[in-house]
This record gives sequence, structure tokens and C-alpha cells, in this order.
Amino acid sequence: MTIAELLANAHNGSTRAVGRLLSLVESDRRDEVLALLGDRTMRVIGVTGPPGAGKSTTIAVLVSAYRRRGLRVAVLAVDPSSPYSGGALLGDRIRMAAHIDDADVLIRSVATRGHLGGLAAAVPAAVRLLADLSYDVVLLETVGVGQSEIEISAVADPAVVILNPGAGDAVQAAKAGLLEVADIVAINKADRDGADQTVRDLHAETAAPILKIVAARNEGIDELVEAIEAHHRADDPVRRAARARAQILSLAQSALRAHGGLDELAGAVAEGRLDVYSATRALLSDAGQEPPAGPPDDRLDPS
Amino acid sequence: MTIAELLANAHNGSTRAVGRLLSLVESDRRDEVLALLGDRTMRVIGVTGPPGAGKSTTIAVLVSAYRRRGLRVAVLAVDPSSPYSGGALLGDRIRMAAHIDDADVLIRSVATRGHLGGLAAAVPAAVRLLADLSYDVVLLETVGVGQSEIEISAVADPAVVILNPGAGDAVQAAKAGLLEVADIVAINKADRDGADQTVRDLHAETAAPILKIVAARNEGIDELVEAIEAHHRADDPVRRAARARAQILSLAQSALRAHGGLDELAGAVAEGRLDVYSATRALLSDAGQEPPAGPPDDRLDPS
Repeated sequence: MTIAELLANAHNGSTRAVGRLLSLVESDRRDEVLALLGDRTMRVIGVTGPPGAGKSTTIAVLVSAYRRRGLRVAVLAVDPSSPYSGGALLGDRIRMAAHIDDADVLIRSVATRGHLGGLAAAVPAAVRLLADLSYDVVLLETVGVGQSEIEISAVADPAVVILNPGAGDAVQAAKAGLLEVADIVAINKADRDGADQTVRDLHAETAAPILKIVAARNEGIDELVEAIEAHHRADDPVRRAARARAQILSLAQSALRAHGGLDELAGAVAEGRLDVYSATRALLSDAGQEPPAGPPDDRLDPS
Repeated sequence: MTIAELLANAHNGSTRAVGRLLSLVESDRRDEVLALLGDRTMRVIGVTGPPGAGKSTTIAVLVSAYRRRGLRVAVLAVDPSSPYSGGALLGDRIRMAAHIDDADVLIRSVATRGHLGGLAAAVPAAVRLLADLSYDVVLLETVGVGQSEIEISAVADPAVVILNPGAGDAVQAAKAGLLEVADIVAINKADRDGADQTVRDLHAETAAPILKIVAARNEGIDELVEAIEAHHRADDPVRRAARARAQILSLAQSALRAHGGLDELAGAVAEGRLDVYSATRALLSDAGQEPPAGPPDDRLDPS
């Protein structure tokens, strides 16, 4: 089956075809898929936060909220905790069980391929693919806490940071740089003690709107959706260009970190055989000759 | 005067020649200077921390400690707060007045040229120059709090983070990612209330040794020097290669962020005229053709 045939099947509702196409945009055949896509765009809502904050629960109720509004919704979970997973799709997530039978909801994981410190290279392509397949909104969940969460802000509009009441999450979020990228902060489990204090503490740290929600009881979700919409309505060409700039730099960083020649160049510098400026030029020049960050394998050959 | 003549004068003790050479390694004539240098290496001790923590005071007493040991000491202050200073050297620093007449102590500022998010491009070259000029130790001070402080860890062995007692500095350091790069933490002004509690709190956040000092009274400085020596003695090829790798990636990031074509590529992506992968390839390819991060001007022509 050709990629064009896969795409036609995906447009006709084959979730299997969608899955194979998502695998292809994670592979070195990404450009072949991109060449067949139109320029329809979609909204990308980033959802991040420390482990246990309730990201998956919040995403599940956000999916319901968008479905009630008649929108087709995709969930992409970027999983940096599996850097050596070889790109295997991790399958649907248990907490999303309520949506498994809904043909207008797609839930997939995207492997980061160990490119920590840069945007998962497949994400912009996956977003374009899902837009072409008439999804209206993608919820981009990043798990764990680290650099790749921050890079998500290069794609997301807005980036929503989920925290819990108490000092622990706030300190962890500050440490990970999450507060700097937050467009909206949602304090989940806000029925717990200390939620108001956490809101006050965070107002000193970020200018982003701070909402209280209880995702497990669907409380505050309409307000969260409205805050997301308000942020999106305020988008403009300057913000779009800034996101594009950050995406380019992030993908470039991913490509450089993953470049096969880096370790040898670093070794030569460490041993005094090469100066660090020449090594940097060599790395940039080599990386510019290659398609960025595609893996060599071709697991899901669609032929 | 040629660069070779400048270098000869610098070797003969001309601090004016050293200053001009340091300006040259900040300019696009950097490679001409590097070509004339031998491969003598020197120790780089990074000193960073939030504003007001006492970095300059600590550095002043560290300079004295190293001078007592008979070592020639250079201090390089990387100043990200002057991104538009045009590379002007900021001159000697007031707190270092005690060392101004010491011919074996050199104190200079290095402009970051607005390349925030990457290592100040001149730093590795300045370090090589100072090593060639028979300095034994460079104390690399980074002021302010931000990404460039973190990049310093790519050069420094060890990176010393200066904090004060109390929660404020610890939270700020965590937020800036300083605790992740700290090889040694020094709690300055440790005669204040709460120092022991701060030490306990920080032990939960970092595995680095934590020392209490009172820099203004020279207390704890011998212990700090010993901790720095112990860290340096533990250096090995794996750590050296890791630092070289981080330096290359940091300089590459600086070059990409400063690249003249980035804004146009980002605009094209934002307007849908170019996909982000093609833009990334174009940026890497273009940047690989150029000397990285040199300014176009040639202020201090030595001819």
C-alpha cells in the first residue's frame, strides 16, 4: 500500500491507517507523508505538569468538553520516559477508556527517541497530519518533568500547566522552568487544603491566569476551556512567528544532539586534537546535510 | 601591530596587549588569535548564583587564596545584563580593588552579545588565551540568573553555586536550574539565621557538597578551595568529553540563535510558506557555512 493509499484510508476513517501514518512521520519517511498533506491547521493545546498532578484526568475531561462542542479531538502523549522504546506506539491510555469507542477521538503516544532537550521531532509533523485528517484540536500531553516539557511551549497555544495545592508542585514546576512557559496554570484537586494559598504564591511567580479545578469531578473545566479559548483568540502573527522560531531552534537542537558525529567531535576536543569552534562548525555543517532526527529503521513499510 | 606582536607583548607583561587580545577573541578575528596559541590548558572554576549572594566577594577572597598558593589568577565576568553593549569591555570591578595592582591577577568582563541561551562564544577562546599567557586558574563569574549561567557548567570544573541562607535563594536557584549544574554549593553569609536549615533543605535537592562560608570575613574559604581541588582531582576523560560535548552544543545553539536568517525562516513557517523541518535544515546548513557567533565589527584592529 502506498502512502497516498494509506492517507485515503485514514480519511475514510481507518484508525489503523492513521496509526501507520503516525509511525511514518516518526520515521525517516516523514517527508514523503508531509508532501501529501494540505495546509489545514489545527489548534494545539499543551498540557504539562509534574507526575501525579492529574494531567491525564484533566485531558479526559477536556476531551469530553470539546466533544460536547462538536469538535474532533486528538490526544498525543509525548513520553520522554521511554527514550529507548524504539519508537513503538504505546497504545491507548487506560484513563481515556471513556473515549475509546468514539470515532472522533484519537489517542496515541509519540516516542521522543531520546532526543531530550529538544522537541520530539515527530510532533510538528503529527500535528500537520492530524489537521489534514480533519481533527480540530490536539491535546499534547507531556509526562515527567524536564526540558522537553518546556519545548512543548514552542508548539502549544496555549501551554497549560497542571499543579496541585501545596508547595511541592510549585517548587518542582519552578525548578523545571514550567512557570516560565505557562500560558495558563490550573490548580487541580483544588478542593484540598491550601489551594488558595498556592494560587496566591503562584501569582507572585507568573503573570499567567491561574484557575482552580477538580478534574475528577469536572469542576472548573468550562472555565478552563474558556481561558484556553481566550488565549487562542489573542494569538497574532508576532506570537506565531515566535513559536515558529522556537520550533526551528528546538528541532535543530534535537538534530545536533542526535547527530552521530557529536561524540567523536567531543572526544577530539577533550583530547586537545580539535578546538571547540572548529568542532561546532563541523557539527553544524554535517547536520545541515542531513534530514533531521529521523531514525534509520523503517519498521512499518506501507508497501 | 600584528596579532603575533600583541601576543609577544602580552607574554612580556603588557596588560594592555592582553586586553586587546581578549577583545580580538570576541571579534570575528578570533580564529587568527587561536591559530597562534599553544595547547597549554588551565583550570576554569565557575562561580554563579543569584544577584546579591556575594559572588564578587567570594571571588575576591578566592583570588587571595590562590595568590597565597603562588598561582596566577584571571577573573572573567560574563555579563548577560548588557546584551547590547557592543562587546565593550566593562573594565575592572570595584570589589576587586585589592588585586588591581597585582601583576599576576587579571580581571576582565566578557560581553555575551545577546546570545542568551548559549555559552558566551568568546569564553572558550578567552580561556585558551589566558592559559597560553601562563595563568593557572580562571574564575569565571556569571551574574544574574538565567540560561547562560547553566551553560557555564559546560566550561567550568567545578561549577560553584553561591547562595544565602533562607528559602528565597534556594527557590531562585532551583528555578534557574542552578542546583542541577552545581558541583559545589557554598552558603555565603552563613553566620545568619537559618543557614543550617538551608543546608538541610538543599541536601534534599542536590548531591553536591554543601559548604558554609562567610566570604566577607574569609571564613570557610580554605575548605572551599579544598572542595574545588577535590572535585578537580576527580576529573577524568569521560567528564572532559561530556564538557566538550556540552560546549559544542552550546556554541552551536548560540550560532543558530544569532543567525541572521532565523527570523525570515520563522516568518515563512508562521505564514505557512515553509514547513518547519525544511526551515530547520536550511538554518543548520546556512549556519554550518559561517564562522560561529563573531560580530561583524573589527573595533580593535591591531595593525
